[in-house]
Amino acid sequence: MSEPTIAQRLAAFAADATTPQTDALRLIELSCMDWASCAVAGKTEPVAKALREMATNDAGTPEAAMFGRRQRVPARAAALVNGTTAHALDYDDTHFAHIGHPSVVVWSAALAVAQRVGADRDATRLAALIGAEASVRVGQWLGRRHYEAGFHQTATAGAFGAAIAACRLMSVGPQATEHAINLLATRASGLKSQFGTMGKPYNAGQAASAGVEVATLAALGMTGPADGLSVTQGFGPTHAGEDDQSAFETLGREWRFADIRYKFHACCHGIHAALEAVGDYVGPATIHVHPRWSKVCAIPEPKSGLEAKFSLTHAIALRMAGYDTAALETYSDDACTDKAALELRGKLALSFDDSISDTAARIKTPKGMLHHDLADPIPLDVISQRLEEKSISLLGRDHAAALKAALASDDMPAQMANWMAQTA
Amino acid sequence: MSEPTIAQRLAAFAADATTPQTDALRLIELSCMDWASCAVAGKTEPVAKALREMATNDAGTPEAAMFGRRQRVPARAAALVNGTTAHALDYDDTHFAHIGHPSVVVWSAALAVAQRVGADRDATRLAALIGAEASVRVGQWLGRRHYEAGFHQTATAGAFGAAIAACRLMSVGPQATEHAINLLATRASGLKSQFGTMGKPYNAGQAASAGVEVATLAALGMTGPADGLSVTQGFGPTHAGEDDQSAFETLGREWRFADIRYKFHACCHGIHAALEAVGDYVGPATIHVHPRWSKVCAIPEPKSGLEAKFSLTHAIALRMAGYDTAALETYSDDACTDKAALELRGKLALSFDDSISDTAARIKTPKGMLHHDLADPIPLDVISQRLEEKSISLLGRDHAAALKAALASDDMPAQMANWMAQTA
Repeated sequence: MSEPTIAQRLAAFAADATTPQTDALRLIELSCMDWASCAVAGKTEPVAKALREMATNDAGTPEAAMFGRRQRVPARAAALVNGTTAHALDYDDTHFAHIGHPSVVVWSAALAVAQRVGADRDATRLAALIGAEASVRVGQWLGRRHYEAGFHQTATAGAFGAAIAACRLMSVGPQATEHAINLLATRASGLKSQFGTMGKPYNAGQAASAGVEVATLAALGMTGPADGLSVTQGFGPTHAGEDDQSAFETLGREWRFADIRYKFHACCHGIHAALEAVGDYVGPATIHVHPRWSKVCAIPEPKSGLEAKFSLTHAIALRMAGYDTAALETYSDDACTDKAALELRGKLALSFDDSISDTAARIKTPKGMLHHDLADPIPLDVISQRLEEKSISLLGRDHAAALKAALASDDMPAQMANWMAQTA
Repeated sequence: MSEPTIAQRLAAFAADATTPQTDALRLIELSCMDWASCAVAGKTEPVAKALREMATNDAGTPEAAMFGRRQRVPARAAALVNGTTAHALDYDDTHFAHIGHPSVVVWSAALAVAQRVGADRDATRLAALIGAEASVRVGQWLGRRHYEAGFHQTATAGAFGAAIAACRLMSVGPQATEHAINLLATRASGLKSQFGTMGKPYNAGQAASAGVEVATLAALGMTGPADGLSVTQGFGPTHAGEDDQSAFETLGREWRFADIRYKFHACCHGIHAALEAVGDYVGPATIHVHPRWSKVCAIPEPKSGLEAKFSLTHAIALRMAGYDTAALETYSDDACTDKAALELRGKLALSFDDSISDTAARIKTPKGMLHHDLADPIPLDVISQRLEEKSISLLGRDHAAALKAALASDDMPAQMANWMAQTA
């Protein structure tokens, strides 16, 4: 017998996987909370409005809820709107091996399809976990080479995860799942050269929607090539894929999604390690970070909220002055002239040191050295606590509590849809 | 001032172009007739049914007609269904410089959007021509290298043409058109490794739909990068584009779309030149074609209708026996055992000769040599006559006559929608 294709391996995984007794299951639910919090916080962004408007005008069968409007739309449209909306602030979760943001694409597809088919909480979170795991594996298979060539794994690998989650929820079986994956090969897209524009969040939305679309078509009997991925001129070879076969080892036994990382601060990622390191310390300090951040987030005297997001010393000073660095509104124009913050900033120095990893920060204080590396694992209960705080920062206490309740209910997809309508 | 980007050049062309006094305008209408005829003939294909079913289930604002069902759907969905349906038989038009099938993508988008905005015949055919011309130019800019790397210009270049036709019909203006084009750069996709599967016609449908989508989003204020196409890691560099700048020379003055070629026989393309060469001749003959066809369409004794489509000698024999080689039903299982055809086939020999172009055929008969090259231009009135005959072969006289009337009416898009409902 010949080796199974990647689509066959992923389809078997999607069909056979059972609920794992690992942190991964809890993490995928926390990712849903984070995804929903980021989406509600991002719903007023112009890109979210444009997508919502198109979906509202197209209308159609009210299968699934959208962020930002009470109207329900077909699952394919909801995935498009929600994927774009949840990525608009770039505040959602990240996976280093996937080289992208897995949850935004997979949850946008999975929750929409779960509403279509009336799935319960258990089926939905497992499907989302399977999809996220698959997208991490595909991202790793495509590898750094794919990313460096200009492709955005969030969208390309993510679309495969979305398709697989949708197929699982629709119970289409391994053969139709295989076709969905192989058809997606001609549909997956997303370029990094769109970063800094509305094209970046759109990448996430269109990937989620493409995943729902191919799953739906495969369920209706559409078939694709025997191998759309690693065959000559398949998706991998045509998209600078690394073909890292180790990506599919341990599939079904190990849940690499569990290495997911969250953003706890609403500013540039290069500031996060220093904010974690400084903790509750207040006073003079020298902040040591990798030199790559010198051109990214080292604005010495920010004048606007946007600039404050890219100022290491000002963000640390805001934290010392008691600001909530997880809240979007912290990074305001006014915060740039806050007296307490300015006084504290005067006591801070910045130093670049290439012996430090670009995910880490060291802070020298009179009381000793503080240190944090974003790559280090965080205990699950700490992640949970921090994400709840972030959710409260983004949504306020009432909406955050209602979100937590919706996620815990047996009919989670329906309750989430109600919650989305309430926050619209 | 810096050089305008490709998106700026295409957007200016889309905004400024006026109705040309060339064959191109008549050809784009003939292409619409051909597109519609191929679509109605292809509407019972499984891939067409799957797409139609999805669009029917999603439903939504009844903006535009679908082939094969009376229900109207949003323009984005109609473009998806119609693009897939019209390419299901692979019988639609071809442009050698574009390296693909321009009309299927552009007409599927243009006619759907024309119905949405209530455009008349003049505006619609001009928008389609502008879109088709743009897709030919983009296809040429991407070049042979893009095609050889595994990409399907029909879909990739085609999507840009669809977006431009949609933008023109929606009168979004050059700036929004530019954004639509630059956003499409992160959305355009389509692989040749899907050929021979339902993925091939799906490529055309999703390209048409993506074009409508980005045009709609740009009209709603969505913006993209300053240059999504030729910038570092833009669409061209990430998709093995040749960056043939001569593709955009003479844009707005010369209409390269006029080099469009049509298929007049419902069999493998490698048989077409010989069928044209043989004309009304009946009798013994030796058929000379390029050796590349020896492995493509040289089945000596076909047993099924599908095999008959790939048998040079049998197709010629059917033609000599009086069959209509433009009609789909000619290539039936029964036709493989037709006595008259078998007798005529016994008098035919096949010879491979690499001094002949792969678009040509030479037929040696006792009465002299017959010759045809598909690359040679055909007079417009001959094309028109042949396409009408093809339309009749595919649709029957009544539907073909009604199609011709719909195309000639001032409110062509609305009349076409009615015609599509009648043939559903």
